[in-house]
Amino acid sequence: MSSHGQAAWELLLPAVGAPARRRGRALQEALREAVRSGRLIAGTRLPSTRELAADLGVSRGLVTEAYEQLTAEGYLRSDRGAGTWVGEAARARRADRSRTADARHGPGPDCGTPVRGAHGPGPETSRVRVDFRPGTPDLSLFPRAAWAAAQRAVLTRLPHPALGYPDPRGVPELREALAGMLTRRRGVVADEERLVVCSGVAQASTLLGFVLRARGLDAVGIEDPGSPEHGRLFASTGLDTVWLPLDEEGLRTGPLAASDVRAVVVTPSHQFPSGISWSAERRADLLDWARTVDGYVLEDDYDGDFRYDRAPVGALQGLDPERVVYAGSVSKSLAPGLRLGWMLVPEALLGEVVERKRTMDLGNPVLDQAVLAEFVTRGGYDRQLRRCQRAYRERRDALLAALAEHLPGTRVSGIAAGLHVIARVPGDYGPPERFLARAAEAGVALRRLEEYGTARPADGDVRLVIGYAHLAPSAVTAGIRLVAEAVGRG
Amino acid sequence: MSSHGQAAWELLLPAVGAPARRRGRALQEALREAVRSGRLIAGTRLPSTRELAADLGVSRGLVTEAYEQLTAEGYLRSDRGAGTWVGEAARARRADRSRTADARHGPGPDCGTPVRGAHGPGPETSRVRVDFRPGTPDLSLFPRAAWAAAQRAVLTRLPHPALGYPDPRGVPELREALAGMLTRRRGVVADEERLVVCSGVAQASTLLGFVLRARGLDAVGIEDPGSPEHGRLFASTGLDTVWLPLDEEGLRTGPLAASDVRAVVVTPSHQFPSGISWSAERRADLLDWARTVDGYVLEDDYDGDFRYDRAPVGALQGLDPERVVYAGSVSKSLAPGLRLGWMLVPEALLGEVVERKRTMDLGNPVLDQAVLAEFVTRGGYDRQLRRCQRAYRERRDALLAALAEHLPGTRVSGIAAGLHVIARVPGDYGPPERFLARAAEAGVALRRLEEYGTARPADGDVRLVIGYAHLAPSAVTAGIRLVAEAVGRG
Repeated sequence: MSSHGQAAWELLLPAVGAPARRRGRALQEALREAVRSGRLIAGTRLPSTRELAADLGVSRGLVTEAYEQLTAEGYLRSDRGAGTWVGEAARARRADRSRTADARHGPGPDCGTPVRGAHGPGPETSRVRVDFRPGTPDLSLFPRAAWAAAQRAVLTRLPHPALGYPDPRGVPELREALAGMLTRRRGVVADEERLVVCSGVAQASTLLGFVLRARGLDAVGIEDPGSPEHGRLFASTGLDTVWLPLDEEGLRTGPLAASDVRAVVVTPSHQFPSGISWSAERRADLLDWARTVDGYVLEDDYDGDFRYDRAPVGALQGLDPERVVYAGSVSKSLAPGLRLGWMLVPEALLGEVVERKRTMDLGNPVLDQAVLAEFVTRGGYDRQLRRCQRAYRERRDALLAALAEHLPGTRVSGIAAGLHVIARVPGDYGPPERFLARAAEAGVALRRLEEYGTARPADGDVRLVIGYAHLAPSAVTAGIRLVAEAVGRG
Repeated sequence: MSSHGQAAWELLLPAVGAPARRRGRALQEALREAVRSGRLIAGTRLPSTRELAADLGVSRGLVTEAYEQLTAEGYLRSDRGAGTWVGEAARARRADRSRTADARHGPGPDCGTPVRGAHGPGPETSRVRVDFRPGTPDLSLFPRAAWAAAQRAVLTRLPHPALGYPDPRGVPELREALAGMLTRRRGVVADEERLVVCSGVAQASTLLGFVLRARGLDAVGIEDPGSPEHGRLFASTGLDTVWLPLDEEGLRTGPLAASDVRAVVVTPSHQFPSGISWSAERRADLLDWARTVDGYVLEDDYDGDFRYDRAPVGALQGLDPERVVYAGSVSKSLAPGLRLGWMLVPEALLGEVVERKRTMDLGNPVLDQAVLAEFVTRGGYDRQLRRCQRAYRERRDALLAALAEHLPGTRVSGIAAGLHVIARVPGDYGPPERFLARAAEAGVALRRLEEYGTARPADGDVRLVIGYAHLAPSAVTAGIRLVAEAVGRG
């Protein structure tokens, strides 16, 4: 299992990719930071020096030195012969920063930060061997060679003035390329005049939040279940969020009408986390509601590009571009670290959104925008989506097969699209708390559906949101087998 | 003068850098956009098709076609034989967007958007041949080859996990590289734990503004004269701005103490626009004040790297890192389009600033950050600064010589550093309004010092803020000669 452990520890300790001469220092710094930020919480047992050295591919002496140094500094505590744990000191001192860290695992929609474990023991309390938390694509699929070629082409051809202060809406060639791509792939009405390049769906949410708040709104509705991170983003703009119940067709019309919100965030193409696609009727109902209350809909099309067994579902925005703000990004298709996304904005909001974008950052970096334009225009983006789709379908199939073999009786839904599924494990495998505790002890990081909404079904089943896209098929299989062994079936 | 005209029109019509097959469409789109956005205002006379074709290096037929198309669409109007003008229609329709456009000329500090001409006729009313408005570096000095090499190196070595959701504070290797560089070059206390990568000084202002507003502040003091753009950025966070008078040593202590602000933005190393360097006494006074009122200082170190005739002045932040938020960027040293900058944040504000950065955009793009880290670490940044410094000193010297020759009697100050000077032209050249109108008619874009503050001296002199860094020495000389000819001396 060393390879899965490695993946997790590399995520936790990214600085180990530093040049050899700085590696010792980088490891210490990364460990220190992981403790400070709360990514490694007090009481977490660290792997042995031998194990961690093997996982990270560094010398054991370097790990030993790091453990000793950090123990001396109070970040770690060590019981001779019994192992090394994360200490209590650092976390208390910087508790206020904990929410800013660990943005590595987005919760699904492109919002960056995870739901923190308020529901039983998290995987942090033991070593993470397989991480099924949703939100991250497979970063090894990033097309480095093609991206490098696009970078070269851009630096060769870009005229000097294009390096000046950008248009806050984005560079024209990217807006044109994206408008074409989105029209073709997602069925949106993508007038490039309405397209605003932004850093992703998280920024789109914040931009829209500020604009709606300035217009006097005080709350936004979010899907239940949905992504609590939307709530945190809107809170930063002064807006409350209101959970609105979902059924198997989409947002329930009655509770929506009864609420007094005038804006909602939805994921109609592949609802996060339930995986449903909204019915045509509910889409129409939502737009009727928006027109009636003079409201707006933010459509978070976080993974609309990934379809396996069915025809693509067109975006809601195509039905009413004056009521729907459409937002998407390259975070699932290329890499979240690029921080590149887009919004299609109703005419009535456009000026305010662009002015807000301007005061936030004056616009996205121009070279990145030009590179993406080049990449889209030359067909690289379509090729990348096909490549991801093949890889992710294979992993999904591995997940379904592993669940059927090792946890029979599990019902899976939301499987036709996206980067995650919902798995409902029957109560025969033990009560949910014990199931999750055992999985965590075995080093498997899982998220419960209950973390994403208000429902608390008492039927004894364990409802999981399983992200699989970032894991090799063998890791998917191994992870499910580990869970099954841990809960007493295997 | 065609080369200067070309420079201006290329800025205005950047899309003409498009591939040949799309050039006609790109030109039309760029013209349309220039009109819509207010960059070309109603009544502006366009160059002849022959002139514009020559300036842009495209065929005359393509320009003719663009003029005809846009005339048909109502953007332009044409009087046979008398020329082509910008029409009235488009602007009225989208007047609300005008402030978002023309971010190409920053006002000096790295804030992006220009002061709009409320003071007499702007250069937009005729063709701009030489543009002395401050704020833009010479974009042709951008080190394309070295940047491309750093991009290649980064894409080769970066570990996969580094492409995931970033740390909102920035990637560790860049924070380390910047901390070292800033400590060495600017005399700051640059603990990398306090360093937050951001998109530039504009974003630093907005981030800090939100944090201060949440702490109950309702206004920020700005230098008079200073940059009104700071006011617009803070307004977007709910903060008012208060002008605080400057003298030749820095902010006057009395009015500062008498104001009820608890935060100020200052440019002590090379005050914008006056060009003074704050005295040691005023620096100490400011920090005393900050400690007394439990306040904060935002130090906008927008061009602190450029020194010609004197030793560098260390940053204010080095004197009290718990009271000074230090902000800088690559906008003047590399290119504003990169949107990369940094802040050093007092411990007491750090958690709030980072959380605000997270909700704004989750952090800056990781590849850009890694490339800058590579560039700084390999010595490329120091080389670039030396190169710019040589080029800009030569241009400053050309400006001083041209003013002495063509507008004798002009007093120049703020000449030891930065990318602009203050020129005080005596009243013998005519009253200020006529002087500026004539210069504008001659195609020379100038900004008056009065645009940057509240002072309205009645002595009849013309006070100009002249940016020279983006102009070749020959253009600098030609521009001043044009002004002299236009005002009746040459």
